[in-house]
Amino acid sequence: MSDACVIIIGNEVLSGRTKDANLAFLGERLNEIGVRLKEARVIADDTHVIIDTVNDCRARFDYVFTTGGIGPTHDDITSAAIAKAFDLPLVRDPDALALLQQHYDKPEDLNEQRLKMCEMPEGATLIDNPISRAPGYQIGNVFVLAGVPVVMRAMFESLKHRLDGSLPMQSITIVAYIGEGVLAGGLGVVQEAHADVEIGSYPFFRDGKLGAALVLRGTDTGTLQAAAEAVRDMVRGLGVEPFEEANA
Amino acid sequence: MSDACVIIIGNEVLSGRTKDANLAFLGERLNEIGVRLKEARVIADDTHVIIDTVNDCRARFDYVFTTGGIGPTHDDITSAAIAKAFDLPLVRDPDALALLQQHYDKPEDLNEQRLKMCEMPEGATLIDNPISRAPGYQIGNVFVLAGVPVVMRAMFESLKHRLDGSLPMQSITIVAYIGEGVLAGGLGVVQEAHADVEIGSYPFFRDGKLGAALVLRGTDTGTLQAAAEAVRDMVRGLGVEPFEEANA
Repeated sequence: MSDACVIIIGNEVLSGRTKDANLAFLGERLNEIGVRLKEARVIADDTHVIIDTVNDCRARFDYVFTTGGIGPTHDDITSAAIAKAFDLPLVRDPDALALLQQHYDKPEDLNEQRLKMCEMPEGATLIDNPISRAPGYQIGNVFVLAGVPVVMRAMFESLKHRLDGSLPMQSITIVAYIGEGVLAGGLGVVQEAHADVEIGSYPFFRDGKLGAALVLRGTDTGTLQAAAEAVRDMVRGLGVEPFEEANA
Repeated sequence: MSDACVIIIGNEVLSGRTKDANLAFLGERLNEIGVRLKEARVIADDTHVIIDTVNDCRARFDYVFTTGGIGPTHDDITSAAIAKAFDLPLVRDPDALALLQQHYDKPEDLNEQRLKMCEMPEGATLIDNPISRAPGYQIGNVFVLAGVPVVMRAMFESLKHRLDGSLPMQSITIVAYIGEGVLAGGLGVVQEAHADVEIGSYPFFRDGKLGAALVLRGTDTGTLQAAAEAVRDMVRGLGVEPFEEANA
């Protein structure tokens, strides 16, 4: 199964000002097409940090997705940093330029700052942006996307056919109003007996009651259902009736 | 200024099932006490990945905060991995044990799985958990916290006096209904003239209108206000009246 890493570039996420909305989207959508998101990094708008992080991640994962820092302002430094990471010249891409020329009615609106949005490492392949035109791009196994969620999502839909997916991960969530500490022993036994299914336990407080969401994930329907039945039996054995919950 | 890194441990965040709520909280609270959050990583429940990530980050940052994976179930592997990262034995901490013994009325409720919550690297210093008792802990410059947000937040309040903060970062957010590409040139000039203030530009669509939030951050009130005035003048020069927005 192919794996992936997401690099979220932006001081505003680290300062807590902006709550990232891209990671959960990418995690879910990659999952659906059978690519496993294995890691995410949130890094500052700092050229050296971007270079080091991109080079580390593109060597370790099949696919890398960056979000943020490809707009027209002085703090948009992603493309220049990625060109340096690949040791490639930063060039004004003619196809990206044509897209922006179509988008702005008056030539004077396409000023020097907006022209920055056509700059990318030489040899990059454009990623269509149906929302606001200025494209993302792919260079090697790195996909460079916008940070604004609506644009990032549209770009992902434009590029996803390039990814080499496999069987999507399916999941079943079983919820029980029971303390994690009570079911932990039995759950460990079920996990050992069903090694092809990954079982996670997530405690919660809801309506003043303590409970746990037990999330089972696997690529094979039969194996997954057998493990789910074993979890339900285990919970019932503790005197509690489990119920299924739609995955959020 | 001290810096920090957050390591979010949990498959559920990478799969998109759970939207992380801890990063924004830690970013804001660290900021308030003058510690700069410089990076965050979201990693899988995988012992080797936890070891490598913790060792990389504790060498690079003044403080490291981990969230998640310290409960009683089989997928709670954080403490065992952190002991390995520090090459220390994993021991049952007597003070943590006493806390749990007080918490559970019946001795049989403190089963083998729950006792796992007293295990930590030898020499760790406990972090109080007023919500559900099972403590977090500090080992070296690494603070090991729960993943459940209400517990993580309470633990952070219990530990924050241990951090060596400095002047808190202040911020001013100026909003203008104007395209980023129009103000980018002027904003770059203001940034160059006010190098002690960090200026970020964040585009948005709101009520069908395109705008940008210009966020200025700095530790000195006078310097920050001077830069803000320069930004306002620049925006007014483009024929648009800027307004201030409370920081979210």
